[in-house]
Amino acid sequence: MAKNKEQFVQDIADIKTDFPQWYTDVVVKTELVDYGPVKGTMVMRPYGYAIWENIQRELDNRIKATGHKNAYFPMFIPYSFLVKEKEHVEGFAPEVALVTHIGDTELPEKLVVRPTSETIIGNMYSKWIKSYRDLPLKLNQWANVVRWEKATRPFLRTSEFLWQEGHTAHRTAEEAEEETMLMLSVYEEFCKNVLAVPVLTGKKSEKEKFAGALATYTIEAMMLDGKSLQSGTSHNLGQNFGKAFDIKYLDSDNTLKYPHQSSWGVSTRLIGAVIMAHGDERGLKLPPMVAPYQVVVVPVAAFKPGVTERATALAEELKAAGIRVELDDRDQSPGWKFNEWEMKGVPCRIEIGPRDIENNSCVMVRRDTHEKKFVSLDGIADTVKAELEDIQTNMYNQSLAFRDSHIVTCDNMDELTNAVNSGNFVKAMWCGSPECEAKVKEATSATTRCMPFDQTPVGNKCVCCGKEFDHLEGFVTYFAKAY
Amino acid sequence: MAKNKEQFVQDIADIKTDFPQWYTDVVVKTELVDYGPVKGTMVMRPYGYAIWENIQRELDNRIKATGHKNAYFPMFIPYSFLVKEKEHVEGFAPEVALVTHIGDTELPEKLVVRPTSETIIGNMYSKWIKSYRDLPLKLNQWANVVRWEKATRPFLRTSEFLWQEGHTAHRTAEEAEEETMLMLSVYEEFCKNVLAVPVLTGKKSEKEKFAGALATYTIEAMMLDGKSLQSGTSHNLGQNFGKAFDIKYLDSDNTLKYPHQSSWGVSTRLIGAVIMAHGDERGLKLPPMVAPYQVVVVPVAAFKPGVTERATALAEELKAAGIRVELDDRDQSPGWKFNEWEMKGVPCRIEIGPRDIENNSCVMVRRDTHEKKFVSLDGIADTVKAELEDIQTNMYNQSLAFRDSHIVTCDNMDELTNAVNSGNFVKAMWCGSPECEAKVKEATSATTRCMPFDQTPVGNKCVCCGKEFDHLEGFVTYFAKAY
Repeated sequence: MAKNKEQFVQDIADIKTDFPQWYTDVVVKTELVDYGPVKGTMVMRPYGYAIWENIQRELDNRIKATGHKNAYFPMFIPYSFLVKEKEHVEGFAPEVALVTHIGDTELPEKLVVRPTSETIIGNMYSKWIKSYRDLPLKLNQWANVVRWEKATRPFLRTSEFLWQEGHTAHRTAEEAEEETMLMLSVYEEFCKNVLAVPVLTGKKSEKEKFAGALATYTIEAMMLDGKSLQSGTSHNLGQNFGKAFDIKYLDSDNTLKYPHQSSWGVSTRLIGAVIMAHGDERGLKLPPMVAPYQVVVVPVAAFKPGVTERATALAEELKAAGIRVELDDRDQSPGWKFNEWEMKGVPCRIEIGPRDIENNSCVMVRRDTHEKKFVSLDGIADTVKAELEDIQTNMYNQSLAFRDSHIVTCDNMDELTNAVNSGNFVKAMWCGSPECEAKVKEATSATTRCMPFDQTPVGNKCVCCGKEFDHLEGFVTYFAKAY
Repeated sequence: MAKNKEQFVQDIADIKTDFPQWYTDVVVKTELVDYGPVKGTMVMRPYGYAIWENIQRELDNRIKATGHKNAYFPMFIPYSFLVKEKEHVEGFAPEVALVTHIGDTELPEKLVVRPTSETIIGNMYSKWIKSYRDLPLKLNQWANVVRWEKATRPFLRTSEFLWQEGHTAHRTAEEAEEETMLMLSVYEEFCKNVLAVPVLTGKKSEKEKFAGALATYTIEAMMLDGKSLQSGTSHNLGQNFGKAFDIKYLDSDNTLKYPHQSSWGVSTRLIGAVIMAHGDERGLKLPPMVAPYQVVVVPVAAFKPGVTERATALAEELKAAGIRVELDDRDQSPGWKFNEWEMKGVPCRIEIGPRDIENNSCVMVRRDTHEKKFVSLDGIADTVKAELEDIQTNMYNQSLAFRDSHIVTCDNMDELTNAVNSGNFVKAMWCGSPECEAKVKEATSATTRCMPFDQTPVGNKCVCCGKEFDHLEGFVTYFAKAY
């Protein structure tokens, strides 16, 4: 094992001393992604895309179970649409990709490659929503979107990325707010039970909210370097897009009204969350729920009679039980394979050799705890299923414990600076002024991540300006450095 | 029923006298699609997108079962890539959408929005394929693509459409050809068993082949107007893209070689095939395998005590058995609902009212045959499943019989002209010259659809120029008007 360990030190940067390089090494060397030829783009290779497929399946089930239907809207949006909502155009105009020509022919109006679809969906909703009977309208789309970014990193920030975007329209403000909160809770539950990532939930500051929304709610996940990854957002759009796109319905009281809307999305960024919330010095550590392979079966002394056959039968048995399994029968040493699959984060490894077969057993090794045990081949599928469930739970508990031990309540700027520089989230009171928000960012590069729903005060003055509150002024706020 | 029938005549153009208008009416009025704000684009509404999801699931299973993995490549391709393969750029350059600016900033090189991904995938394969051990490489992607078209119609030809594109690389020419044919057969089987659409398979002429391929194979489906819809293609790319993108691998004989490649794809056009192969004067007729709802349950006299409850329980029972079911408890008359769901093509309708409940039965109506029968509520899920299977089979058989009765063997241009103008496919001998191919097109607007694999001669001279063949010259060829 010592030798294997060394080998990794060569392959992947040290997670403790150079987390950014560790990330870059891991995503490329485990073949999750490669860099595309156009700056800022990524290719999702089969191992990375399979994680996305698992995310899609699990999340799509949840989106449908909460009464939404999928649809698909065109990617090209007339530039004039973008301009209709003032904040929206200010937020997105500088980073949109523009189609100006078809072959040699210039288009009469330039087209925006969607950075998000509120505008084109607003345009269609104005055709479809005529009566209160047409409400609520609750659609979702899985799509690619483009936002040109200066500094890009695979999964975290790429010029093009994949996501889902929900767009709903409701009769009342209450219903829209309820929907916005419902989808935030769906994201929270999904991160917990599928990605094994605990998230903080809360409201974004005015500065950090979506361009065009009344209010943005967010899920924020702590990465192993103590930085926050905004992992999903749910927006209450109010009537802003309804007014901009003239969406009007005749209510039962015979008056024309604008509907109240929401939108919400998560993206391939979630794969970044999984990598940075769970990895270790050996590489990826994937939660069973999203791992492309939940189990890898490695035959030991495969040249001996019967070994490959028994390993194959074992893999088939696991597959028949609905477990995602890979049989590694390549012409490489078992040790080399163990390293490879540890780096690739497969949750459970099964080793099987002649002596194991003689004993009707195999060796089961967990990626999360490195625990190694002999288990009977009788009922192996049930044994593995139980182990995978335990790994999933354990990974969540580990992430939760890590996060909770890295949240520091602070009272002043010295404490805050110290805490964020030591890789923590800070929980503190904030007076709510944009000036204090900007000052914290300038001094520490930490930003307001969210104001949690539980506003039980953790002090009586602003962590930045020191202004004392009488009783209900000021907001409990999480500050952190962020991706 | 007479009244309902009349109502339809108002809603949807007559399928017999105005097939194109019937198609346009059906796709819009059943809410499969709407027109997007940019010319030539379509919005896939939930009812249409659900068909695509069913197609995706079924086809994705088949693509994976034949050893392919999914991946995702960037949508933006440097313009210089397009130019590398001579035929490819000639074929696609006039219709590509070009991104020239990000916000106000001009890009150093314009970007092509992918019309297909051979070039960008070629570029990546040149990085990944170094040794014969890296072969075969068999990837697939589900994506949107853009090809600007002058005349567009929903599903059949839109500026942006959704598809899957497989891209493989192999060590030998034989393997590449085998793969090309394998995927053609997967498409053929899929159309038969999932879409209930029989297809003709064969090779495209030089004129009709993919820009950059050695050879293109196609599946051609007959629509109810006797026109052909090219429904999928599988290309043997030979070493063309390997040479253009410098993909080289070291073979076991220690020499550098170009791999042999294939690519293959089907698109949202398949939904057009389903509509135009199965519809009737009442609207859509969807095969159970792709229908968003396989069964609709309509309560009759729902105001009477117990009816809604029993209908709900029935729907739940079907759902629990894995049947896609919709309970229509809207505040409309049963007759109105019957019409609506017939137009929307739901394969099986169940009506349940007080007397049915008393008799422990319900009424089951098939969309394909309009057959109506009383069936017991005991074991209803099994009854419905068997009926759905029978509908699926019957729809295929009907399509097959229709197609086979609309293929006419012709010996000369008069016969050919007459046959295609009467809504038939023509099977005839062709000398293989581009001149005859062009002449047939000019005279009749029919084109060569494919040269089937079974080349048993159907004559001894070219249908166009009349040139007599000695023995093995000339090709059995299908001619038809096409979408």
